[in-house]
Amino acid sequence: MKRVSFVQTVPIFGEVERNLMRVERLLPRDSDLVVLPELFNTGYLLLNKEELLKLAEPIDGITGRFLAKFSKEHGTSIVAGLPEKSKNGIYNSAMVIDETGDLVGVYRKTHLFGREKLLFRPGDTGFRVFNLSGMRVGVLICFDWIFPEASRVLALDGAEVLAHPANLVLPYAQSAMLTRSIENRVFTVTANRSGEDDRCVEKLEFTGASQITSPDMRILVRAPERGEYVGTAEIDPRDARNKKITEQNDLWMDRRPEFYGRIMRR
Amino acid sequence: MKRVSFVQTVPIFGEVERNLMRVERLLPRDSDLVVLPELFNTGYLLLNKEELLKLAEPIDGITGRFLAKFSKEHGTSIVAGLPEKSKNGIYNSAMVIDETGDLVGVYRKTHLFGREKLLFRPGDTGFRVFNLSGMRVGVLICFDWIFPEASRVLALDGAEVLAHPANLVLPYAQSAMLTRSIENRVFTVTANRSGEDDRCVEKLEFTGASQITSPDMRILVRAPERGEYVGTAEIDPRDARNKKITEQNDLWMDRRPEFYGRIMRR
Repeated sequence: MKRVSFVQTVPIFGEVERNLMRVERLLPRDSDLVVLPELFNTGYLLLNKEELLKLAEPIDGITGRFLAKFSKEHGTSIVAGLPEKSKNGIYNSAMVIDETGDLVGVYRKTHLFGREKLLFRPGDTGFRVFNLSGMRVGVLICFDWIFPEASRVLALDGAEVLAHPANLVLPYAQSAMLTRSIENRVFTVTANRSGEDDRCVEKLEFTGASQITSPDMRILVRAPERGEYVGTAEIDPRDARNKKITEQNDLWMDRRPEFYGRIMRR
Repeated sequence: MKRVSFVQTVPIFGEVERNLMRVERLLPRDSDLVVLPELFNTGYLLLNKEELLKLAEPIDGITGRFLAKFSKEHGTSIVAGLPEKSKNGIYNSAMVIDETGDLVGVYRKTHLFGREKLLFRPGDTGFRVFNLSGMRVGVLICFDWIFPEASRVLALDGAEVLAHPANLVLPYAQSAMLTRSIENRVFTVTANRSGEDDRCVEKLEFTGASQITSPDMRILVRAPERGEYVGTAEIDPRDARNKKITEQNDLWMDRRPEFYGRIMRR
């Protein structure tokens, strides 16, 4: 059995060090995997590219070093969203740290939401699955949820758990992630934020209700809509390796890609 | 605006003529499109191939002629499930009749459920979209719901409405079809049956709760879990042509098939 957790945060915009201190207080000490929200260190509502450039970090910046240290001390794998500064530009990314504190990779958000398109480069990593604490963990970020292909590709590549950092404003994703669980027979961990970013007229309210779902479409734990919250579930990742939904139906064996070709065209 | 309906039935196993009479009493006279359940004319729990061979019909058999006559009289398009006898064998199919009473096609269930695999041939039509009463209607049958590729292919091919004849026994589909609606921005019409087939030790209970859902993930109408029921919604199919979910996000334009290739492999 593995302990997987989300930390639902209420960041203060732009106050990276204060946000890290708040998260340090919240981070569970006894989990195998912790998922933090999208852009958890900075907050979401960036006004412009100048502000983004100021707040973005390389993945081995202050945020990455802080999380790697925690990871190493507690033997916890971590998936956490941040604005990632790289040679090619700035991405809406999730850093992936294994249980030894090694930064094993990054996922760059494939499907940008709303005005993110004006700020970030579209992700170029594709969907990736990582070995974390003895689990196969696939990563998607926020709006990726609405594209069934994102979760599907990760599950077909062997993900047992979908780590899903989010800053959700639409009301649909929590329900849709239950569908992602049953259609792929995987666990999902959505780490959403709560509170508001009211830095300009486009004030945004985030929906909280972070959750962990199971391959049989149950909500194992769900946070309230408001406030900081840590949710943890004990899961057996092997449940997600079994794709049988009835004695005669294995969701992978039953697929018929010869009829799915349309998906590859625009 | 178009009127679309489901008829939730409680068939008597094997009594095709009685089932047609019951359906005739239920069929709404003023709908543009009516969806009937999977195998609506025969019931579901076929004991063996001999029984199936006795009950299966060509699509222009008694059931097809009965529905075509109703369709022509009332200007109603119909999608309805039946065991289809063809030259190549017997399929779990849905016949598609347009508003003039013409049988315009058939869809043969792609993903067979449970012991259906021992009875029916796997569908060979692929997923098809039909022009019915001025709407683009895609057809899937029951267990096809769990494969996101099925609805996706239909929606990408222009379906505004997914007609979904079903005989559901698992408790997941009604919720998942809401996800199919939002992820594809389409209407869905699930016509489920209610009642039991208790012809052998493998007694089956069907879940009713037929429903119509909208591209913004609302349940427009839902039947009770038990009993016959006719549900109708007034819809504007153009809502499903608009794939925008925010000012900056069009679900079709935002797709990135270059990262979806894994879906085409087993």
